Amino acid sequence: MPKQKNDLASVRVGTKMTPARKGRPVREPRTRKEGKPKKAEKPIRVSFLGGLNEIGKNITVFEYDEDMFILDCGLCFPDTDMPGVDLVLPDFTYITRNADKIRGIVITHGHEDHIGGLPYLLKEIHAPVYATRLTAGLIMGKLKEHNLDKTAVLQVIKPGDTIKLGAFTVEAIHVNHSIPDPIGVAIKCAAGTIIHTGDFKIDSTPIDGEIIDLARFAALGKEGVLCLMTDSTNAERAGYTESERKVGGSLEHLFSLAGHRRVIVATFASNIHRVQQIIDVSEKQGRKVALSGRSLENVVAVAAELGYLKVPDGIIISVDEVRKYPDEQVTLITTGSQGEPMSALTRMSSSDHRKVQITPNDVVIISATPIPGNEKTVGKVIDDLLKLGAEVFYNQMYDVHVSGHARQEELKMILSIVHPKFFIPVHGERKHLTANAALGEAIGIPTSNILLVENGTQVTLTKKEIKADTTVPAGRVFVDGYGVGDVGNIILRDRKKLSEDGLVAVSMAIDTVNGEIVSGPVMESRGFVYVRDSDELFHDACDLVEEITARYTRNGKIDIPATKNHIRDEVARFMYERTKRSPIVVPILLEL
Amino acid sequence: MPKQKNDLASVRVGTKMTPARKGRPVREPRTRKEGKPKKAEKPIRVSFLGGLNEIGKNITVFEYDEDMFILDCGLCFPDTDMPGVDLVLPDFTYITRNADKIRGIVITHGHEDHIGGLPYLLKEIHAPVYATRLTAGLIMGKLKEHNLDKTAVLQVIKPGDTIKLGAFTVEAIHVNHSIPDPIGVAIKCAAGTIIHTGDFKIDSTPIDGEIIDLARFAALGKEGVLCLMTDSTNAERAGYTESERKVGGSLEHLFSLAGHRRVIVATFASNIHRVQQIIDVSEKQGRKVALSGRSLENVVAVAAELGYLKVPDGIIISVDEVRKYPDEQVTLITTGSQGEPMSALTRMSSSDHRKVQITPNDVVIISATPIPGNEKTVGKVIDDLLKLGAEVFYNQMYDVHVSGHARQEELKMILSIVHPKFFIPVHGERKHLTANAALGEAIGIPTSNILLVENGTQVTLTKKEIKADTTVPAGRVFVDGYGVGDVGNIILRDRKKLSEDGLVAVSMAIDTVNGEIVSGPVMESRGFVYVRDSDELFHDACDLVEEITARYTRNGKIDIPATKNHIRDEVARFMYERTKRSPIVVPILLEL
Repeated sequence: MPKQKNDLASVRVGTKMTPARKGRPVREPRTRKEGKPKKAEKPIRVSFLGGLNEIGKNITVFEYDEDMFILDCGLCFPDTDMPGVDLVLPDFTYITRNADKIRGIVITHGHEDHIGGLPYLLKEIHAPVYATRLTAGLIMGKLKEHNLDKTAVLQVIKPGDTIKLGAFTVEAIHVNHSIPDPIGVAIKCAAGTIIHTGDFKIDSTPIDGEIIDLARFAALGKEGVLCLMTDSTNAERAGYTESERKVGGSLEHLFSLAGHRRVIVATFASNIHRVQQIIDVSEKQGRKVALSGRSLENVVAVAAELGYLKVPDGIIISVDEVRKYPDEQVTLITTGSQGEPMSALTRMSSSDHRKVQITPNDVVIISATPIPGNEKTVGKVIDDLLKLGAEVFYNQMYDVHVSGHARQEELKMILSIVHPKFFIPVHGERKHLTANAALGEAIGIPTSNILLVENGTQVTLTKKEIKADTTVPAGRVFVDGYGVGDVGNIILRDRKKLSEDGLVAVSMAIDTVNGEIVSGPVMESRGFVYVRDSDELFHDACDLVEEITARYTRNGKIDIPATKNHIRDEVARFMYERTKRSPIVVPILLEL
Repeated sequence: MPKQKNDLASVRVGTKMTPARKGRPVREPRTRKEGKPKKAEKPIRVSFLGGLNEIGKNITVFEYDEDMFILDCGLCFPDTDMPGVDLVLPDFTYITRNADKIRGIVITHGHEDHIGGLPYLLKEIHAPVYATRLTAGLIMGKLKEHNLDKTAVLQVIKPGDTIKLGAFTVEAIHVNHSIPDPIGVAIKCAAGTIIHTGDFKIDSTPIDGEIIDLARFAALGKEGVLCLMTDSTNAERAGYTESERKVGGSLEHLFSLAGHRRVIVATFASNIHRVQQIIDVSEKQGRKVALSGRSLENVVAVAAELGYLKVPDGIIISVDEVRKYPDEQVTLITTGSQGEPMSALTRMSSSDHRKVQITPNDVVIISATPIPGNEKTVGKVIDDLLKLGAEVFYNQMYDVHVSGHARQEELKMILSIVHPKFFIPVHGERKHLTANAALGEAIGIPTSNILLVENGTQVTLTKKEIKADTTVPAGRVFVDGYGVGDVGNIILRDRKKLSEDGLVAVSMAIDTVNGEIVSGPVMESRGFVYVRDSDELFHDACDLVEEITARYTRNGKIDIPATKNHIRDEVARFMYERTKRSPIVVPILLEL
């Protein structure tokens, strides 16, 4: 059970007066309660542990007096400068250090960058998790994978609900986004109200009929909001993000162009509204729908079970059944819209999918845009599909995707109706935050009341002022294979160097009695050169190793550490001079 | 000296009749000349050695009868899947195999992906190089670097000139692009006329006042064009590419916003017209101009010397002099608009530039768009500059760049006025070529007359037909350090694996007389794990190595190859089971 606020009463037990020490100013020892300033004067602390300077692993800790709660707990997928890393988690140090103060975890929506870190966090601390129904369903899948479904406490909430978390009350507010059931939150405590939009857009014609609850944001604005935090993802982009419904129109048009051909649509697994629109247009055209990709099958199953996806009876077929139907009666929805190497679409494009072969009778719609960094891999998938003869519709040429994030006019609208005293742009790299901050200035918030934060920033907020003068640990924790946190920056640096210039291992056996080399030196290299004259290169390097060994042997006594160090440095230098490459040199001296 | 066409007369010497062999149909042996079909019936062969399925290393070989010439000779910069590689060259095999037929090399413009491979090619073959004045100036710089300036033959041509290259005449036609002095070419031989646009756009208000020679393209169209090849880079994009002059207007506006602050503009070194506009607006505002970045200084020096850049007297100062002037009197032009790690702008953004410190009194204009694949590194540079307090104007938010490549309406215009019989989209990945092919269809070229090609495709072209039924070698040749071609796919595969899971070297000394391990096994790892229990992991792995060694030792005789192979495989499997990672295992057995 999470510790509750009223447990703190026990702190006073046993507190007693102690005499002042000699030579020091006499100060009244204070009981904890008496010593505190009045409630209203206490600051709120907001610690940003992730989601800034990056896209991904969103996690924020709100703190008032002795109570804390966590908003979202995401993960990132590794960058190209993190080879071999499977996942990137937030640093939970600040949370585990304050585990007894954590009253709960509130989740805004079910995307990986908001829920993916939860199972790892719940292995470290116990706290109830609050989420809307679909989000909870997706979280439950993760908890089961990690065998946490029996122990974790998962509470389903709905927009309008208010959760009491120690000194905080947190109200869920419906917003629009590229997954159903997203919420923003109004966080109230004695020091004032903070609104955090979560990821959002304003969609006046959403697929599920529920527009973002602008009235509630406005009402809170009228009551007075101390601080607003909004999603900066699209803050660089002018205008409005278009409605999800627009994609439906495009899909209908492209499906009609497809005619008698098979249609394959790649999209984000979690974009249930997109999947709904694909199913709807397929139904109209008399097509069956098959799903390819584990994450897609999981999400669709959860969404259909919870009623977020309306699936006409008998329309879903398995991928194995696809070949039983003529092409014109099949739609295949698949993952891989980001060109992920192991995804279903990528495997289809490289003729490496066990069940689906691409032919000139296929139309592929990539209903997504590449996330920055994925442009090349997505381009490669498109090229490969075209080479197999498929026609490919993608976002650069057709309106097959809309973003789930608000653009400038939407952001200004929220800023205007909430008109907060302080403004902290969140969710984005510095350039997105900066662009969002400019929107705050544009609607009249004084520059000094707008704060740009980074991962690790701890903001202190009172009714009168906002400042960011403390920091908390907020690095990246790498998950690699079975290990969480056991691959660090040194190993990544080595991996980078290995990938650029490879490695040369030098081994020899040495008689420590007289310092003689009794076997070797032998060199083995990987990822280095493959040249006609590499034999000569290695031969000359071995001569150098022998010379170094002789140099550090005196009166039959060999200085092993010096020999190793000099082999490492001098062989590296020798290789660079001869090849302009700097392999890592690993000397292994066997002593006899 | 390249061999000339009339040398071929010698082929007939020594040709004589031979009796038909028994049992075979008697066929008249033919002398070469007599046996050939009539001149007009010979096909043109076009071999695409680069520039397709990729952006970069453009190179095409045109061939008629016994004559060949090469159009462009570029290079690529390595992708992230080619770690450690410095440059990527085309495969010159087809050219060196036919070295005696090469009559010349024609260059369309001075970008790296069109001239960068030249020095490497000229080390393999001797042939005169034809280029316009600025292009020749840039090539000369490269030839000097490679000590080829004394031996290579570099001929300066101008638009309208016609070069005779064996059976071909090649006419240079002025086009617009993001570097001055670019040309397209009309290639004539007995079989017909081919037009290759080179990289181009249609700029009606170019900075140097010379619009693309549409009249000449149209006149050639009237004469009849057998085949057109056009630049597909922007074929996915609707409308027209805007004029370079538009950027001048934006720069003027942004410079005025900068006011009393220093202005730093990052752009492509070769975009002389952009540099001209930056100099012009600086002059108007009373700013001195400093240049930072070696490639920029080189290109500007060449362009100014040849009169392509008009530099007012006294406006250029050195980077060292920048601090002598107040910020409002300084413009700094720099390289690094792609976020290249070692570039001047990247070093400034990471406070790592020896001479330029970024302060809140800086305005940085990134006058370029990220080339696909560079989005993240450019984003990082922007973030870092913002964190140092600079204001940053970049293309996502401001009109600070226009492309040098034609969009759909421009491509259709060229297609319409040339109205070729056959059409081959060039310069781009498959998706760009496909989009360009669709434009050909849109203006009425039959689908069967449009050919999609890849690197390595050899097209055979006659007055009647186009086909692509042969291939030529067209791989990638890696330049890494001093080596050209000595890093191949095996090494890259090793490097990738090393970067993902690292390496474990296992060494031991073995007495071959009795198969006893006399020293070791010792393990060393790089890029693998760094765990609290790694000692135990390696200890257990050493036990396994000893067990394997014993297993392959019989009657005191050790089977070294079997022992090595099993150590490699079994230790790898052991590591995977324990860590879910697969390091490369390198066994080194020293024999005594």
